[in-house]
Amino acid sequence: PPGRKVLIVYAHQEPKSLNGSLKSVAVEELSKQGCSVTVSDLYAMQFEPRATRNDIVGCLHNSEEFNYGVETWEAYKRGGLSSDLIEEQKKVQEADLLIFQFPLYWFSMPAIMKGWMDRVLVQGFAHEFPNCYDSGLLKNKLALFSFTTGGSKEMYAKGGISGDIRYLLWPMQHGIMHFCGVKVLAPHICFAPEYVSEEKRKEMLIAWAQRLKTLWKEEPINCSPEWYFK
Amino acid sequence: PPGRKVLIVYAHQEPKSLNGSLKSVAVEELSKQGCSVTVSDLYAMQFEPRATRNDIVGCLHNSEEFNYGVETWEAYKRGGLSSDLIEEQKKVQEADLLIFQFPLYWFSMPAIMKGWMDRVLVQGFAHEFPNCYDSGLLKNKLALFSFTTGGSKEMYAKGGISGDIRYLLWPMQHGIMHFCGVKVLAPHICFAPEYVSEEKRKEMLIAWAQRLKTLWKEEPINCSPEWYFK
Repeated sequence: PPGRKVLIVYAHQEPKSLNGSLKSVAVEELSKQGCSVTVSDLYAMQFEPRATRNDIVGCLHNSEEFNYGVETWEAYKRGGLSSDLIEEQKKVQEADLLIFQFPLYWFSMPAIMKGWMDRVLVQGFAHEFPNCYDSGLLKNKLALFSFTTGGSKEMYAKGGISGDIRYLLWPMQHGIMHFCGVKVLAPHICFAPEYVSEEKRKEMLIAWAQRLKTLWKEEPINCSPEWYFK
Repeated sequence: PPGRKVLIVYAHQEPKSLNGSLKSVAVEELSKQGCSVTVSDLYAMQFEPRATRNDIVGCLHNSEEFNYGVETWEAYKRGGLSSDLIEEQKKVQEADLLIFQFPLYWFSMPAIMKGWMDRVLVQGFAHEFPNCYDSGLLKNKLALFSFTTGGSKEMYAKGGISGDIRYLLWPMQHGIMHFCGVKVLAPHICFAPEYVSEEKRKEMLIAWAQRLKTLWKEEPINCSPEWYFK
């Protein structure tokens, strides 16, 4: 609906890929609804995935023994995080909905996107003990993982060789998003697009656009072990 | 035992950290046993986590539409992967045992280590359909995930707020290592070292050295859904 803000964190090297098209479809459809849409195109930004001392501007809290979690927490509080992180945190802060668009790499997100999680969601900003899970600092936001797979739907079925696809969603949806208080919408999964016809791929794009039309009416999943491992 | 080769893939910024000490203990103990030990110190190497066109030397198989999986597969076959990847693949090829030593970041490994998985374990080298899982190309090797957590053992218990720690091992142990045919030894987990006494941390180092003494007699876990979600 008009006024809603969406951040799409997007990780694919090739604009012509299905992931690129899924991203474009989302920008188009959500803009049409009157949402304001921002895209963090991680490869195009050459986003830094490594969590290092460079993320802290100026002196360290403890220069004797570097502790990334403590140092970024302290730096956040004094406004001393590196500018690329401040930039991403601003986008997150403003967003009502975060969409993560990526190809599944090794049962998870590509390293460049994992680096976005590792570096952007610092303590003090996204969580601050005991403010985690339902009281995480990013509560009142929604997240949606939209991704493509190499393996087929059959491989990712319960009893399939790769196990129920939900098993691998636990660290991403519960361990990251729910931990920060973000409510999780059902994932959007395009299985094995490389092995289907061009027509099937077009149907995948249409299905995504279709889902986005009524996205704001969706209820979040119940992000507890039952949803994943029942 | 004498002659066995071990690769430790290590991801911590600070040599004085518990992760640094756990790594050193492993080098020391395994060397004492007569093993030959190699360490990939990812932060010290400034290891590149991003999967990009730079990983392919020379011309692309399809320069119209970049597909990382296809391009690295083709490049592997013609010896055209970037030198840092060839170097890491050599270390993996020679190793009988891979130890991954890291602090848990967001229910998973740090991005720099995820990038090692994304970039080193290319098709043709680590797997090549239908050679995956039990017939993966790295069969006859062992892997062990050794990591520290922020959360306590109670949080990571079944029914705890973060769920059974085994839930989050699925993508790493099954989705990556088992997929490549590697057999997985039980993980080695140091819970919440930041919140215990110096003495307790010393005990953690001793326990790790102790386990390594009889490591070669251990049986791999049965890497199926039952182990993780029973």
